[in-house]
Amino acid sequence: MFNYQERRKKLYALMEKESVDLIFLPKHSADLDYLLGTERRVVTFGNVAYTHHWVAGAFLHPKSDPKIILPRMIVEFDSPNGVDPNTVTVNETDDAHAIFKKVAESFGKVKKIAVSARTWSETLIHIMQIFPDATVVNAEDLVNQLRRIKSKEEIEEMSKACYLVDEVLAQVENRVVVGVSELDLKTEINFQMNEKGSKTESFDTAVWSMGPKNNRDASDRRSSNPIDGGMGVSFDFGSVINGYCSDFGRTIFVGDPSGEYQRVYELVMAAQAAGIAAVKPGVPASEVHKATRDVIVEGGYGEWFRHRTGHCIGLDVHEFPYISEEDHTPLEIGMTFTIEPSIFWPGKVGVRVEDVIVVEENGGRKINKHSTDLVAN
Amino acid sequence: MFNYQERRKKLYALMEKESVDLIFLPKHSADLDYLLGTERRVVTFGNVAYTHHWVAGAFLHPKSDPKIILPRMIVEFDSPNGVDPNTVTVNETDDAHAIFKKVAESFGKVKKIAVSARTWSETLIHIMQIFPDATVVNAEDLVNQLRRIKSKEEIEEMSKACYLVDEVLAQVENRVVVGVSELDLKTEINFQMNEKGSKTESFDTAVWSMGPKNNRDASDRRSSNPIDGGMGVSFDFGSVINGYCSDFGRTIFVGDPSGEYQRVYELVMAAQAAGIAAVKPGVPASEVHKATRDVIVEGGYGEWFRHRTGHCIGLDVHEFPYISEEDHTPLEIGMTFTIEPSIFWPGKVGVRVEDVIVVEENGGRKINKHSTDLVAN
Repeated sequence: MFNYQERRKKLYALMEKESVDLIFLPKHSADLDYLLGTERRVVTFGNVAYTHHWVAGAFLHPKSDPKIILPRMIVEFDSPNGVDPNTVTVNETDDAHAIFKKVAESFGKVKKIAVSARTWSETLIHIMQIFPDATVVNAEDLVNQLRRIKSKEEIEEMSKACYLVDEVLAQVENRVVVGVSELDLKTEINFQMNEKGSKTESFDTAVWSMGPKNNRDASDRRSSNPIDGGMGVSFDFGSVINGYCSDFGRTIFVGDPSGEYQRVYELVMAAQAAGIAAVKPGVPASEVHKATRDVIVEGGYGEWFRHRTGHCIGLDVHEFPYISEEDHTPLEIGMTFTIEPSIFWPGKVGVRVEDVIVVEENGGRKINKHSTDLVAN
Repeated sequence: MFNYQERRKKLYALMEKESVDLIFLPKHSADLDYLLGTERRVVTFGNVAYTHHWVAGAFLHPKSDPKIILPRMIVEFDSPNGVDPNTVTVNETDDAHAIFKKVAESFGKVKKIAVSARTWSETLIHIMQIFPDATVVNAEDLVNQLRRIKSKEEIEEMSKACYLVDEVLAQVENRVVVGVSELDLKTEINFQMNEKGSKTESFDTAVWSMGPKNNRDASDRRSSNPIDGGMGVSFDFGSVINGYCSDFGRTIFVGDPSGEYQRVYELVMAAQAAGIAAVKPGVPASEVHKATRDVIVEGGYGEWFRHRTGHCIGLDVHEFPYISEEDHTPLEIGMTFTIEPSIFWPGKVGVRVEDVIVVEENGGRKINKHSTDLVAN
């Protein structure tokens, strides 16, 4: 589906430009998925660990074929689609450091090595023992330069992931009524996402009510409380299609919305619309944040819009650049990011909307199709 | 509930013994949870990332109070129970490296620094810029020496996590019939675990059928296929109670079990019983593996018992030592680990049993109470 060789060719050009001799990307990273098409394992709350697990990943070098190295247990039990036939497998009773060293040294002289941002330190400690004089840099600075611009094929996968969550909310939203528990709704959403082909949830699905009947903040996203009337119920969830993530949010009111809820709802939607209108190739990400934020500040609720406007999204949920006050990266055609303003005021009102936007020649196009009109059940 | 100060005191003694001046433990690590009681966030398939996210964690030094450093977004939105009042917060527009450096340098001279095994390399690169001449070692070698021995209080939490999954399977097992989908069962298990107070799944819940009607291996754990008769349906799931994980497995037959299924089932149970009988303080972990494995090898199915017998478990699902051929660590009173033999023979038969065992003075005690008798629906 994707041209991994082409992606690697571009990476190798960046490596040569930055004098990076070798890159190590761990098995669990989206970086490796991006460059080799290796599927990532679904993550776990408690660490899952195999003997010599730290070796799991691949070395990439501009003049050689990538070399994958994996502990036997990952080959045997975590690779349902098989592994590259040239994979070096480390068995439980092997000397893992010696095997890893042999692979690492097979690329010749290494003065500068880049490792994926979330490579385990355990792995990096081994790498530094092998190349004690090499400079170590963050590979994200290279790989993100490629990943931040999505190809037509990637935007198609992102769109499938977005349409899937649109559909799931359409199926679930009439169940948002008094007495149904937040856990029931979360369970239904996760079931529907899986049933429609999502590999897993792209992040932990959240369903939480805010308003005058509780003093809850948006950080408290987990409960099995039954839903009460007179409250807004916010949804935040995403699917995974061929590795690509969506991230989606709506708020649904239960009962007759008060005047303040309606004002806040319209303000948040107007903020999102202003953000989308500000999107254009060349515009700094921070300006999209400002355009979005200004609407809420002018509406008098600036204190309760307490986070960045959004973040790029792709194989990971949050990718650089961020649509945030400190990020002045100029937008480029093919970037995909969320615009997700909120007003989260505990004990008063909570509303958020979130959609994925793609930067096109003439501006920002919202991928999601689910309506942003006020819904009250 | 736990005496974190006492735990840190023991860690400081180990640090002094090993001449480790400073330890960095990231926010997402069970190591930090163990030593400070900081709750870990539920994990996500696609990375979630905030501006300056790499700073998130704490420094521990034998002669000072721990110092926690967090990006503002984690303080604001990922800390539902609040944060330590002395937390250093890094705002989006701050110079994160400068703030992190100031905190790191406040402990005085650092010749040797230990970092938790899964600390992000991005963070370690910053640490090495601050202490270019320091030796970096894996903190797991220190912290695991403490974590591997569970206190009475920890065994109580582990027991709750085990009893919870026992109960969940008891509620779900009569639903294991022809036509119900594996995804239905997984959904029900996750719902019930949450409903009964589990923070999340300790790892990705798996329900998969093996036997003569498919050619599936145990590595292929996700499907929404309806369950067919004449097959064994294996369950593998765990809960999280106060940070402590359980890990549990049973196989249930749908229909009238064949003679071979019955033989294999009894063999796997006999292997587990032999493993438990081999547990005693001082016995090497590898001997428990051998005692378990020998039963299956002698029964003629050695080729299809393709993994270690088990692993320690606690705040993480897989902890050292492993009950595995290469791990000769002597068992100690208070260790908790799984004994989970299997016979996974694609196209023929798949059976596994998994329980958590605690090492006591007189031997191994199985914590789980769910029967291991053959169940056929």
